This record gives sequence, structure tokens and C-alpha cells, in this order.
Amino acid sequence: MSSLPDCFYCRKDERLDALMIEIAPLEVSTLYLFKEQTYHGRCLVAYRHHVNELYELPEAELARFTRDVARAARAIKTAFNPAKINYGAYSDKLPHLHVHLVPKYVDGPSWGTTFTMMPEPKKLLSDADYAALSAQIRAALG
Amino acid sequence: MSSLPDCFYCRKDERLDALMIEIAPLEVSTLYLFKEQTYHGRCLVAYRHHVNELYELPEAELARFTRDVARAARAIKTAFNPAKINYGAYSDKLPHLHVHLVPKYVDGPSWGTTFTMMPEPKKLLSDADYAALSAQIRAALG
Repeated sequence: MSSLPDCFYCRKDERLDALMIEIAPLEVSTLYLFKEQTYHGRCLVAYRHHVNELYELPEAELARFTRDVARAARAIKTAFNPAKINYGAYSDKLPHLHVHLVPKYVDGPSWGTTFTMMPEPKKLLSDADYAALSAQIRAALG
Repeated sequence: MSSLPDCFYCRKDERLDALMIEIAPLEVSTLYLFKEQTYHGRCLVAYRHHVNELYELPEAELARFTRDVARAARAIKTAFNPAKINYGAYSDKLPHLHVHLVPKYVDGPSWGTTFTMMPEPKKLLSDADYAALSAQIRAALG
């Protein structure tokens, strides 16, 4: 029996594996590649502990988490040169702090509007393609 | 002639007034009440300078900005007790760093999914109601 909450960000179980692939640990969080790749280079940063709202983090930890998010966004910019990166944290029903990082390209999907959480049809890639994207982002993290 | 960019967050002109109402200055940003109030207590935090991406901010300034966002979110929670606050930063075409703070309520609009940027029909309030909401949030900021 695990003492972790029944949360796939905590347990890193098959529910998480169905949605994303770990790219790298960051200072206080983990960077994942989102499997649904309508937005080329889409990632997610999940905080290391089961906390729901930004304001629950002590000030120094909040600064570290935001630094992780900004570092990941910069790496996506370096790797794929999107025109803009969108940031979204929702989790109404999944109380574990995480931020979607969604690269946007001029005249690409959802350009000029909010991104779609799970576009249909899904754009899923091969394992080799996921590995290549992850390697690009990992390299750009420095 | 203003030397400011043609950006309503910089100029604080009638384009901004059409969308939001200033609640209070924060440390490095301004807190606004969003006029469209489908999501009761919806606000926006705009950074003080014309910067586009989080990673363009120096580390200490990034920490200050995030502290402002977290402080505003906590004030919304205190004022209205939503079940969750959503955070969104998009601005594909409006390159000035700002974060939408969108309170969500169990079984309320968009519960369990992403918020809608501009719901239709719009829920606009009277000036007196905007003033009352702003006062509640201002009081909760401490």
C-alpha cells in the first residue's frame, strides 16, 4: 500500500504514462512531454508535492517552481522557436499543481486564441519521435 | 506623442477600460477586475513593463511577479471561496505579460475544464456591483 494520495502526478503510474513522458527532473518539479502533440513541443511541468494552488507554496518554493516553469518555456523556445508559449494551470478536479506549456505558431493551431486541452483528432507520435522531441528539449535545458 | 508601445496594458487607455477595472497596484504589476464576470471574481494581473514571456524576466523580478499572482489568487479565494482558481497566460498577439485568474466553482461554469476566454452571452454588471467586487478583493489583499 502506498501512502501517496491517489494522484497520478504523485504515483507516476500508468494514468500518467498514458498522457505524458518524462523529459527531465527540474529543481522542484518534473518536466514532461505531452503525448498529444497538436501543438509541436507541448510540455507540462508538475510540482514535486501534492499541492493545489500557487499560494500554498512558501515564498522561496514558489520562486523555485516559477523558475522551473520559465526554464522549461525557454527550452521549448530554443528547441522549436514558437512565436509564443501559452501557460495554463487549471486542475479543478486534479488537485496537484502543474502547468501546461503550449507552444503556438503563427497561423498554426489555435493561433491567437486559447489552446485546446485535448484536441480531436489527437496527434500522437511514434516512440522514436517522442524520444527525438524529448532529446531536443533536454539539450535546450542546458 | 507617447513613447509607449501601442499596447493597452502600457497605455491604460479606453481599450483596457472596455475589458477591466483597476483594483489595486501590486509589487510589480497591476490587479484588474475582469468586466466579464461569468466566473464570479475573475481578475487579471498585468506586469508593469512590456515584456512577453516569463523567461524574459530576471530571476528576482520573476519571483516578484509570481508573488503578485499568488497574492491576487489568495485574495480571490478569501473573498469568494471558489473551489479552484485557474491561471492562464496566452497573449499570442498581445505581447505584454499578463495572467488571467479565473475562479471556478463546483458545478459552476466550465467546472472541470478550461475556462472560456470570453463567454457569450457576456455577464456584465453594474458599476456599483463592480465597485463592490473590487472592494471585497482589495480588502482580502490585506
